[in-house]
Amino acid sequence: MYVILVYDVNVARVGKVLKRARRYLTWVQNSVLEGELTEASYRALKSDLARVIDTREDSVLFYVLGARKYTRRELMGVQKGGEEWIY
Amino acid sequence: MYVILVYDVNVARVGKVLKRARRYLTWVQNSVLEGELTEASYRALKSDLARVIDTREDSVLFYVLGARKYTRRELMGVQKGGEEWIY
Repeated sequence: MYVILVYDVNVARVGKVLKRARRYLTWVQNSVLEGELTEASYRALKSDLARVIDTREDSVLFYVLGARKYTRRELMGVQKGGEEWIY
Repeated sequence: MYVILVYDVNVARVGKVLKRARRYLTWVQNSVLEGELTEASYRALKSDLARVIDTREDSVLFYVLGARKYTRRELMGVQKGGEEWIY
C-alpha cells in the first residue's frame, strides 16, 4: 500500500516526528512524507508516532492509496525541506 | 480525477490561498484540501493559486490520484482547521 503522511505538530515535537516517520517513509516536502508500506510497517509507524505526539495538540493525517501510487504529483513554488524529492 | 492539495505558504498569504483553494476543494485539515476535479478545474485552480503565492517562498503540492479516490484516510491526534471533514 502507498501512504502519504501529512503532519501538523507542535514545533517542540517536529524533530521527533520527522525522525520516526523517516524510518518508514520518504520525506518529500516540509510536512509531507510518502512511500510504500506493508500493513505491518504501517501499524508500526502509527505506533511509533503515537508515542511521541500529543494527541490533544498535534495531528498526523494518513492517506492510504492502496496498491496503486498516485497518478502524478505537482509542485508549485519552492521545494522546502524534503531532502528526498523523487522525480 | 481526485486531488489532494497540501500548502505551505507564508502566513501573510494563507487566507488568500485557502479562500481560493476552497472554491474547488474541500478543506479537510489545517493545510490540506481534497476533492474531485475535472482537468479544466484543476488547471483553473492552479492558475488562481499562481496569482496569489510567492513562488520564491511558498509551496503548494498536488497529488493527483486519477479516477480512484484513496482507499482510506486516518487521522491521529486532533482535528485542526478543516471545517468540512468528510467521514
